Amino acid sequence: MHKETARLIELDRAHTLVAHIGAVLSWDQETYMPPRAIEERSDQLALIEGLAHQKAVDPEIGELLAALEAKDDLDPVEKAYVRVMRREYDRETKFPEAFVTEYAKAASMSQAAWAEARKNNDFASFAPHLERMIQLNREKASYLNPLARPYDVLLDLFEPGSTRASVAKVFNVMKSYLVDILGRINACPQIEDKCHGLRVDRDVQEKISRYLMKVLGYDRARGRLDVSAHPFTTTLGADDVRITTRYLEDYFPSSLFSTIHESGHALYELGIDPHPEYRGTRLAEAASMAVHESQSRLWENIIGRSHAFWEHHFPAVAALLGEAGENLDLDSFVASINRVVPSLIRTEADEVTYGLHVIARFELESALFEGNLKVQDVPEAWRAAYRELLGIASPDDRNGCLQDVHWSMGAFGYFPSYALGNLYAAQFWGTLRAQLQVVETRIAAGETRCVLDWLRTNIHQRGQSLTPGELVETVTGSALDPVWFERYLREKYSRIYGF
Amino acid sequence: MHKETARLIELDRAHTLVAHIGAVLSWDQETYMPPRAIEERSDQLALIEGLAHQKAVDPEIGELLAALEAKDDLDPVEKAYVRVMRREYDRETKFPEAFVTEYAKAASMSQAAWAEARKNNDFASFAPHLERMIQLNREKASYLNPLARPYDVLLDLFEPGSTRASVAKVFNVMKSYLVDILGRINACPQIEDKCHGLRVDRDVQEKISRYLMKVLGYDRARGRLDVSAHPFTTTLGADDVRITTRYLEDYFPSSLFSTIHESGHALYELGIDPHPEYRGTRLAEAASMAVHESQSRLWENIIGRSHAFWEHHFPAVAALLGEAGENLDLDSFVASINRVVPSLIRTEADEVTYGLHVIARFELESALFEGNLKVQDVPEAWRAAYRELLGIASPDDRNGCLQDVHWSMGAFGYFPSYALGNLYAAQFWGTLRAQLQVVETRIAAGETRCVLDWLRTNIHQRGQSLTPGELVETVTGSALDPVWFERYLREKYSRIYGF
Repeated sequence: MHKETARLIELDRAHTLVAHIGAVLSWDQETYMPPRAIEERSDQLALIEGLAHQKAVDPEIGELLAALEAKDDLDPVEKAYVRVMRREYDRETKFPEAFVTEYAKAASMSQAAWAEARKNNDFASFAPHLERMIQLNREKASYLNPLARPYDVLLDLFEPGSTRASVAKVFNVMKSYLVDILGRINACPQIEDKCHGLRVDRDVQEKISRYLMKVLGYDRARGRLDVSAHPFTTTLGADDVRITTRYLEDYFPSSLFSTIHESGHALYELGIDPHPEYRGTRLAEAASMAVHESQSRLWENIIGRSHAFWEHHFPAVAALLGEAGENLDLDSFVASINRVVPSLIRTEADEVTYGLHVIARFELESALFEGNLKVQDVPEAWRAAYRELLGIASPDDRNGCLQDVHWSMGAFGYFPSYALGNLYAAQFWGTLRAQLQVVETRIAAGETRCVLDWLRTNIHQRGQSLTPGELVETVTGSALDPVWFERYLREKYSRIYGF
Repeated sequence: MHKETARLIELDRAHTLVAHIGAVLSWDQETYMPPRAIEERSDQLALIEGLAHQKAVDPEIGELLAALEAKDDLDPVEKAYVRVMRREYDRETKFPEAFVTEYAKAASMSQAAWAEARKNNDFASFAPHLERMIQLNREKASYLNPLARPYDVLLDLFEPGSTRASVAKVFNVMKSYLVDILGRINACPQIEDKCHGLRVDRDVQEKISRYLMKVLGYDRARGRLDVSAHPFTTTLGADDVRITTRYLEDYFPSSLFSTIHESGHALYELGIDPHPEYRGTRLAEAASMAVHESQSRLWENIIGRSHAFWEHHFPAVAALLGEAGENLDLDSFVASINRVVPSLIRTEADEVTYGLHVIARFELESALFEGNLKVQDVPEAWRAAYRELLGIASPDDRNGCLQDVHWSMGAFGYFPSYALGNLYAAQFWGTLRAQLQVVETRIAAGETRCVLDWLRTNIHQRGQSLTPGELVETVTGSALDPVWFERYLREKYSRIYGF
């Protein structure tokens, strides 16, 4: 290792430490902080964020990177590390300060306007803010790469290496099979959701969550389960990754699958360890948002909604449910948690329709950036997309184009990650199945450790030492291919719905 | 306000913010942090402590203080603020860095040696460390004030304005009446503790704690109750003061009185507001450790163990206890929580014997510093003091001179604060009673708000704008006088034990 790399690691670690302190403050704010503490907490967070930024833009980092980039004898890990650090350093330093301030102010006003607009179902009042955030994001993209198409630059911020064209290519394939599968399901008799309306105490739901965390191999010596308004996973230290869930008394699968989903994220974070010398650095972070999502979805959907998994674990959950669950049996439970119903709201979507919600957003936001769609036409374009993809459309904008916060914050290029996560998950799963063999049998026997071990070795450990593209290629032997997800869905849902 | 004061406030607030961030990290560490997170958390805390130190030793503070001290037109609040900041600044800057490092290292080794020595009941192995910590504390004192007696300087660190002589004066008076009262109690038939052995679920104890927090006026919008190995109060923000308690399943009064005690500390912290312009500064901190302790003791002992208080609140607690409390009635409960029994361990002592435990420590530590006691003779001197004051002595050192952590950390001059707190509490209480009148009747009617309001106005609000000596003089019209505590104890215990 070059001495410049060693010094870079030192500076990077100091930044990570500050970032983790910020995570402690934020975690506390979302879970246990008394309400009136918010004012000073904002000041505390601003101080820590300022300190983190200061550490991230240290000119010494720039000098070290330049020196390392000029060398031709970097080892592969060093090379990956320089790539990651260059990316982060550019993101932190390429924007003029006046732009950062202006952006933050505009985003804050835009979010407030969005919340108000959604409440009043009044897209027109939000439109100028959306316009402004698009303009600012064009500007943002031009600071990072003035030669590329702005939307490509934005996409790359979330999923390194992806472009509108590369995403469109896989999404177009996915769109046609999702529409086809949905059509087949719609033609079958609907499944009854036997979990709906069962009243399950919070305590019981918490016990179920803790049971599942243990089953998944989420080590409580390095993590926690708490409660927050919206479930999340957060990293407060290399050995401190916490999740939250939320309990709905009349729909217990909600907390159950939130816990599995967030545990999937936490297992990823806890498993990252690309190289002992790079602990506490940015190399020891997730490969991308979509890869992160692949881990949560793999556990939540592919394993957590599988018949095999519940063959072993349903009795334990039924025992915890007691009387509340007496009308549930293994098969009706597994059927209930796999119902496919086209709906208006993305966050409530099932495995089949979820991708269609994302495709709609991707097509709309890329059209906005390509200049093929005007902001004022978004509501109608949204309805048209939903009608085409899901066969339903919201008469109002509140449950239509105003449902998600992302655009109001300026997070364009973010949505695709959610669906790419499903594609990665299916491709990883297909490979894992081929390599481990009889994995469903083992899962049905209560053994999920082999899955975690495989994910650790092949995905988690690596952190950012491979780009998402390199990762999928290395692990599965081919580039990201939507066919894996298609096979998975067809096999699963033809069985469930009998088409 | 002078512009130098305004700038000082600005620098001071930046320090407070960092200190509060440290408090969030520590609170989390004591309550919810997963065990394996400890390593990185220590690094996070070290970073924040380093930053706090950096802000506290800013040379600009020294310049501003010098400029302000040269002026003769400071207003009274400004004057107090300069006094407080000078004190803090000297403490942070007068020690050479090499000394600070050496001290920290020695203290850490000494604490480890103490823990081992206590486990093995082996004072001899701890003696050299104790010797070293005494030597280092002499040195510490000499940096702060080379002309004063070292123990006076150390005492002043905890209780500003106090000296060995001033403490000895009040402690000698207290000693004689405590010994007298204890003798009278010992001559009476002992009270039965009807709370011992009652099994009370943790949930029930938590409900009792929450009930009492509400009764005392501890606003949950600005605080929390959690669980930790040792109960404590901590300030994470001006509007964020949290307490912890611990639950013993076979002795519920333990959590009950811990909660009242810590609530007393929290109410003090939450009530500090010497002047709107000084919010977030060190002027808005407690007057001293002993004054802090006076608030916790006043609520815990004077109010929380009074018959009047339980006349109103016993039914609610009995209702929460349910079957577990069916053999308790108001009188037997109040008698049980006021039993006086000489014991070996300070932290388990009752109101009467507690002061004797502290006097023993004060006399021994001041003799060590005055050169009238050698370290090797501590165990025997400890036994002699306990025999004299409490009439019992531990055959081993584990429950004798090795029972407390304080000396191993080098905290000499700390113990007196605990007993001074009882004296302040009784003197404040006597004054409050005279001014409010029929306060017991109001408490017996469930009204404790008048007590909190009086404490807020007379003590809490002021923060450090008065020294402890000025505070007691201003509030009660006289210097600290142990006679108030004597009157309180004689009146209370002659009734309880019938002497």
